[in-house]
Amino acid sequence: MGQFDLHILGCGSALPTRRHLPSAQILNVRGKLFLIDCGEGTQLQFRHTKLNYNKIFDIFISHLHGDHCFGLIGLISTMGMLGRHAGITIHAPKELEMIMRPQLDFFCKELPYEVRFISFNPGVSEMIYEDRSLEVHTIPLKHRIPSAGFLFSEKPNERHVLKDMLDFYKVPIREIPGIKKGNDFMTADGELVSNNRLTTPATPSKSYAYCSDTAYTESFLPLIKGVDLLFHEATFSEEEKERSASTLHSTAAQAGRIARLAGVKRLLIGHFSARYMNDNILLKEARSEFDNVLLADENMMIEI
Amino acid sequence: MGQFDLHILGCGSALPTRRHLPSAQILNVRGKLFLIDCGEGTQLQFRHTKLNYNKIFDIFISHLHGDHCFGLIGLISTMGMLGRHAGITIHAPKELEMIMRPQLDFFCKELPYEVRFISFNPGVSEMIYEDRSLEVHTIPLKHRIPSAGFLFSEKPNERHVLKDMLDFYKVPIREIPGIKKGNDFMTADGELVSNNRLTTPATPSKSYAYCSDTAYTESFLPLIKGVDLLFHEATFSEEEKERSASTLHSTAAQAGRIARLAGVKRLLIGHFSARYMNDNILLKEARSEFDNVLLADENMMIEI
Repeated sequence: MGQFDLHILGCGSALPTRRHLPSAQILNVRGKLFLIDCGEGTQLQFRHTKLNYNKIFDIFISHLHGDHCFGLIGLISTMGMLGRHAGITIHAPKELEMIMRPQLDFFCKELPYEVRFISFNPGVSEMIYEDRSLEVHTIPLKHRIPSAGFLFSEKPNERHVLKDMLDFYKVPIREIPGIKKGNDFMTADGELVSNNRLTTPATPSKSYAYCSDTAYTESFLPLIKGVDLLFHEATFSEEEKERSASTLHSTAAQAGRIARLAGVKRLLIGHFSARYMNDNILLKEARSEFDNVLLADENMMIEI
Repeated sequence: MGQFDLHILGCGSALPTRRHLPSAQILNVRGKLFLIDCGEGTQLQFRHTKLNYNKIFDIFISHLHGDHCFGLIGLISTMGMLGRHAGITIHAPKELEMIMRPQLDFFCKELPYEVRFISFNPGVSEMIYEDRSLEVHTIPLKHRIPSAGFLFSEKPNERHVLKDMLDFYKVPIREIPGIKKGNDFMTADGELVSNNRLTTPATPSKSYAYCSDTAYTESFLPLIKGVDLLFHEATFSEEEKERSASTLHSTAAQAGRIARLAGVKRLLIGHFSARYMNDNILLKEARSEFDNVLLADENMMIEI
């Protein structure tokens, strides 16, 4: 079973409070850490996860509002002091590099590793990362500035072979990769053995969609259909619906509606406005639209 | 009695830990707040003081290492969202403006207040701030890059007038400002009344010196002589004396020695290396040189 854990480092909105920090999350995929957004204080919060800085792989920045990226320079600088050597790639809208280069040139002159910026166009969905077992696609969002969410999806897992049956049919080792992919098997006697006699179904692949910041829009529903976990911003309650619309944010009820329409398995809401002393009003509201809702909180870890 | 309180927002060194945040302090002089250094997380820590962002007057940046200034952009941006109108002045080595302008231009396009940068030359002591009751002078330090500490000194207070005596001698109101400054008074009958019959001594003026980051140097002793409170960095213990010397930091014993040689009233040590799980080793070491030592800690407030 592949590890696919989400750590919440910060789930507040632009104004930090005593309860919430700006946006940052870590997705731990079998020990590779992917950082999603990097608000001020990310490196401080990361310390609390007890995860290893050196395991941070790529960084994904949804949009260039400060509460989603002011923590980058501190994190990059600290990883340098800790002796990181592996390069790091930051996926972000294109202006980020222009803003960060002067800071890197000044503060991180002797950085022992390379920082690469790869820009994406937040207006279209594209695959921006791929490795042997994972793909990351952007999700165009609707916000005051160009913004994209991210869909992390495991590639299909292989079917589990039944060792007894392979022995029984004398399946040669060279055939096994094909059988794991679903091939049938022809014995030396010409008997066709159907794949489902040799294997059990693959572990379902996991998927996580991060959608923040965004106004209510059904335009990205096809991209997030059926995901195991959807993070959807829920900055406001329905009482602030006008403010939510004018700032291109969502209400908790809208987040719930998106989860229902997309048929996701679980919904996690966050990016809470500083005005809520108790976020349960937002939880209750989202649950009026969708049953399986979780309220994000700092230092929370969710197994997907 | 004038308020002259120091709030510690962060007292760790470059690597943040679960116990300490990077450098930032607030000096509250009768309700005017002066921010001294601004490491990442300053605005988050400021929330815990329950002080008012709008009362932040000038900002003083000792040197351009990230752990002393990465929190500026977040703080500036947040004060804008909170509707600040009063301009703010940042006193810092000259390169800061060049580094921050692109960030301000991008992230703070609609900032409702002005951010002014005034540079100082960390190599010489100069007065960089003055108001009716306070002066701030720089203190040249010895570090890997140009660095200056800051001496905050109240101007001499006025003598306290004895109302009964003013009535007895029928002192006209126009004479009172002079009498508060120490003038004698001539009655209508030509009798000379000595000032000390009309007043009691002024409340002593207070002073605070911030010296971080710096190697051990006696060169600034004359500037900090007899201050009420000295903050001197104590990154390392004597066991790390070589590392301390090579990185141009100080040991706790050296901080204590400076306090003793300068004849200060109290010493506050901070900027602790991440290696110390318990800072009491540093306290003990500083006390071997000087009696009146305090260990800085986050959220600590000291009345000077």
